[in-house]
Amino acid sequence: MAKLDTNDWITLNVGGQRFLTCRTTLLLKEPGCMLARMFASQEQSMMPSSQDSTGAFCIDRSPKYFEPILNYLRTGNLIIDPNVNPEGVLEEAKYYGIDSIIPKLESLAHTHTVPRDAKPLT
Amino acid sequence: MAKLDTNDWITLNVGGQRFLTCRTTLLLKEPGCMLARMFASQEQSMMPSSQDSTGAFCIDRSPKYFEPILNYLRTGNLIIDPNVNPEGVLEEAKYYGIDSIIPKLESLAHTHTVPRDAKPLT
Amino acid sequence: MAKLDTNDWITLNVGGQRFLTCRTTLLLKEPGCMLARMFASQEQSMMPSSQDSTGAFCIDRSPKYFEPILNYLRTGNLIIDPNVNPEGVLEEAKYYGIDSIIPKLESLAHTHTVPRDAKPLT
Amino acid sequence: MAKLDTNDWITLNVGGQRFLTCRTTLLLKEPGCMLARMFASQEQSMMPSSQDSTGAFCIDRSPKYFEPILNYLRTGNLIIDPNVNPEGVLEEAKYYGIDSIIPKLESLAHTHTVPRDAKPLT
Amino acid sequence: MAKLDTNDWITLNVGGQRFLTCRTTLLLKEPGCMLARMFASQEQSMMPSSQDSTGAFCIDRSPKYFEPILNYLRTGNLIIDPNVNPEGVLEEAKYYGIDSIIPKLESLAHTHTVPRDAKPLT
Repeated sequence: MAKLDTNDWITLNVGGQRFLTCRTTLLLKEPGCMLARMFASQEQSMMPSSQDSTGAFCIDRSPKYFEPILNYLRTGNLIIDPNVNPEGVLEEAKYYGIDSIIPKLESLAHTHTVPRDAKPLT
Repeated sequence: MAKLDTNDWITLNVGGQRFLTCRTTLLLKEPGCMLARMFASQEQSMMPSSQDSTGAFCIDRSPKYFEPILNYLRTGNLIIDPNVNPEGVLEEAKYYGIDSIIPKLESLAHTHTVPRDAKPLT
Repeated sequence: MAKLDTNDWITLNVGGQRFLTCRTTLLLKEPGCMLARMFASQEQSMMPSSQDSTGAFCIDRSPKYFEPILNYLRTGNLIIDPNVNPEGVLEEAKYYGIDSIIPKLESLAHTHTVPRDAKPLT
Repeated sequence: MAKLDTNDWITLNVGGQRFLTCRTTLLLKEPGCMLARMFASQEQSMMPSSQDSTGAFCIDRSPKYFEPILNYLRTGNLIIDPNVNPEGVLEEAKYYGIDSIIPKLESLAHTHTVPRDAKPLT
Repeated sequence: MAKLDTNDWITLNVGGQRFLTCRTTLLLKEPGCMLARMFASQEQSMMPSSQDSTGAFCIDRSPKYFEPILNYLRTGNLIIDPNVNPEGVLEEAKYYGIDSIIPKLESLAHTHTVPRDAKPLT
C-alpha cells in the first residue's frame, strides 16, 4: 500500500495546541463551513492562513473548545465531556460556521447557564 | 539484556497527540481489529498509514477517547475516568473495531445520555 | 490571498505553556489592559517582555487561569469550565487589568468560596 | 555545590508522556518492584528497556495512572484526584508490583465500581 | 525598554513538565523556603540542582501539585481547582517549606479525606 500524500494531512495550531487531521475531514462533513473553505484548495499558496515554523496552520481560537468541533467533523457525533462548558463549544461552532450543531449546543448552554456551584446555596 | 528492536515500538500520532506502545499490544488483544491489521506487517513500507516528521504513524481520530482504548489493549480492562464521556469511547471502539468492549460502552453511554447539568433543573 | 505578516502572530509563553494569538486580539478588546500595552508597538525591540529561545514572549503567570482570559479577548464572552476555580481567573483579570470581567468573576468567586467537598459534611 | 551526575536522573517515556525522576526514587521505596529492578544497575547497557530518540526509557503503559504511582514512590503517600478512576491506578500498581498500595486501591476501586452517572437514575 | 536579563528567568523541569517563572517569584514571597534557597545565587554554577538538555532545572516532584504552589508564590493567594486533591498540594508545601499555607491545606485535606465516591453508599 502506498503512503498517503502528505498534502492530505493537515496540522492545525489552534491557539498554541496542535491538531492532526485529514483535509477530507475538514471538507466533507460541512462543506460550507470556514474550515472547509480554508482548506478547499490543494495549493498551499492559496490558503488564507499563516503557518508556524513547523508548517502547522495558525488559528487564533481556543484549542479546548475546538476539540469537540473537530471530533464532530470526524465522527458526525457531537460529544462533550462533563468538565467542558458547552457555551465554549457553542462559541466555536458559530465562529467556524458549523450550523448543524448550533441548536443542540444552544440547548446545552442554556441548561448549563445556572452555575453548578451556585446551586447548593440557593 | 539486549535492547528491544526499535521495530517493536510504535509511536502513534492520534489527532496531534503522541502515544507510545509496543506492536504486540496492538496485535494480540484483538487480532481482528483495525490497529492489529494496520501493524501486522513488520515492514514499514507495507503499513497503510502516513508517518509524520518524527516517524509517528498518523491517525485522524480523537486522542482523548483513544486513551482508554489503548489502555484496554494493554491491560484487558476497560477503565473510564469520571470526566470522560463514554459516548466518545464508544465511537472509537466502533471505529477501531474493538468489538469486545462495545456492549459495555453502549450500556455506559445509554446511562450517560441524560446530561448531568440538566438534572437539577428537572 | 497573501500570507499574514508573521509580525501579526504572537506566541506567549505563560508560565511554561505556549499560547498562539493575533496581535489584534490582544489590542482591540481592552485597549487599556496590560497585554494591549505590551504589544502595542510593532517593533519587537520596544516590547518590554523577554523572549524564550523559540521567540515566545515570557509572562510569569498561571497558564491555566490565563486561558479563559485570552478566550475572552478573542470572543467577548467569559466562559469558565466546571473544573476551573473562578478565583484563579479573577486573580489574572486583576493582574492583566481586564476590568470589564472583574465584577462577574468576583460574583462567581464569592459563590465558589464554600469548598465543594466541605458541603456534604455540614 | 557540584552538579548531580546525570546518571542519577532518569526520564521515562510512559505511553508517550515524559516523566522526570531520580534513580533513587525508583529504587528505595519499594526495592522489590519492577521499576527498582529495571533501574538497579548503573550501567545503561544492562537496562532491559528501550530508549527513545531523546534517551527516555520506554514503558508501554498508561501515563495517567502511572502519575500517582510515581508520586507515591516520591512521597510515600498515595494521593488520587477526584477525576481519576482508582481502578486504573490499581491496574498499574499490580503491573509494577507496588504491593504496599494494592489493598487501599482495591478498596477505593470497589467503592468506585457503581458508576457515578448511574446513581441518579436508580 | 531593554530586554530582561535571561538570568532573571528560570525554567523548572518538575517531574517532566516545564514551568517558566522569574527568579524573584521564587525568592521574595517565602525567603526561607527551599526554592528561594535553591535560586538565591545569581551564579548558575552555585545552584544545587541538575539542568536538563534545555537548561531547565530538574526537580523530582509532582508537577500537578506544584502548580498551585508556584501560583501562590506569584499571587499570594492559594487557589485549588475542584479536581485537584488538596492532600497532594499539602505534600508539596511541606516538601518545599512553604509554611504559610500549610495550616489552610491541612484543613482542606482533612475535609477531603472522606472519599467522594464513598459517600452515596453510606
